[in-house]
Amino acid sequence: MRVEPRLVTLEGGEGAGKSTVLAALRAILEDGGREVVSTREPGGTPLAEQIRGLLLDQSHEPPTAEAELLLMFAARAQHVGGSVLPALARGAWVLSDRFTDASYAYQGAGRGGDAGLIGLLEERVVGIVPGLTLLLDVPVEVGLARALKRAEADRIESEAAEFFERVRSGYLARARAEPGRFRIIDASLPLEEVRGQAVEALQSYIGGLA
Amino acid sequence: MRVEPRLVTLEGGEGAGKSTVLAALRAILEDGGREVVSTREPGGTPLAEQIRGLLLDQSHEPPTAEAELLLMFAARAQHVGGSVLPALARGAWVLSDRFTDASYAYQGAGRGGDAGLIGLLEERVVGIVPGLTLLLDVPVEVGLARALKRAEADRIESEAAEFFERVRSGYLARARAEPGRFRIIDASLPLEEVRGQAVEALQSYIGGLA
Repeated sequence: MRVEPRLVTLEGGEGAGKSTVLAALRAILEDGGREVVSTREPGGTPLAEQIRGLLLDQSHEPPTAEAELLLMFAARAQHVGGSVLPALARGAWVLSDRFTDASYAYQGAGRGGDAGLIGLLEERVVGIVPGLTLLLDVPVEVGLARALKRAEADRIESEAAEFFERVRSGYLARARAEPGRFRIIDASLPLEEVRGQAVEALQSYIGGLA
Repeated sequence: MRVEPRLVTLEGGEGAGKSTVLAALRAILEDGGREVVSTREPGGTPLAEQIRGLLLDQSHEPPTAEAELLLMFAARAQHVGGSVLPALARGAWVLSDRFTDASYAYQGAGRGGDAGLIGLLEERVVGIVPGLTLLLDVPVEVGLARALKRAEADRIESEAAEFFERVRSGYLARARAEPGRFRIIDASLPLEEVRGQAVEALQSYIGGLA
């Protein structure tokens, strides 16, 4: 696994405020004159967005746990090969709303998927790790209440609260296992505060690279 | 890996006559009073058929080799979990137009994909092997001429002849490595002859099970 210092990822459950934070982080990087590619997973290329559509759509039978995991990694392979690596190669920064950690949290901890298989796919198909990952951590009931206010629930958002508890624990376990890469931000704070802490974390990270 | 004696698969390149042979094999099994599920890969369930659509569609950017491989196995996971295993569990026979061998031939030998990864996915995600596999082997130029007479080429059918040569070699290598499971049928013969040989192979296989 190769660490990509210019790849910064944002992780967290539903209603954690990722979109707002992402926009603030982008502004910080661009103020410094950097090219920034903002992207998201699953998605980030036309084909990967179509795979996202299959994953979130409720009109066909639900994917099996294995099919969901492989669709996520298919979208990720396309995203990495078709968008992330070319951007990094030309010197741009890449800000991604979710990345491989999300598969450990959702398909692994959440669905009880095969963590060994996730590790193998990360190693053989993804091959890169972000330099910085901000985990916006929020109690499940707070996040879901925010997310449901926003829009109709998609297939994954319709899961039971226990599923999201497992996802949250999965994220926190990953963050504790890699304290050098992760910054955990308490996203139950007011959004202004969350944004401020995220901006500070990114600025201190950039300072450390220089 | 668990061998499923009532899972019979048909493999082969373009224009090998798989559809005609499949119908004949189905008739043989049904004449014996067996329930038969005819299916195909990629596909075989509504979601898996939608993944097939993504794989063959030419309107978006082509998938990377890794994304194609993972989409194939996502469709296969869905097919196995949602259709093949339930059918086998109730005692039906399953006749599949392509199965895991096709990934070794197309995504492995054809595209030069990671055979180790294919093996891991077969083991961890598919978990079952057909009892009988008929390989309809035909020289690439003969098969392509037949296939192109039939319809507009999809994304995979538009590959260069060298790609199909590697696919053919990949299939033949697998057949030679597992002579107990494979029957190689010379599909350059007239279709009546190909069908006759396939029917004979199935009948002798059924006889051996009894």
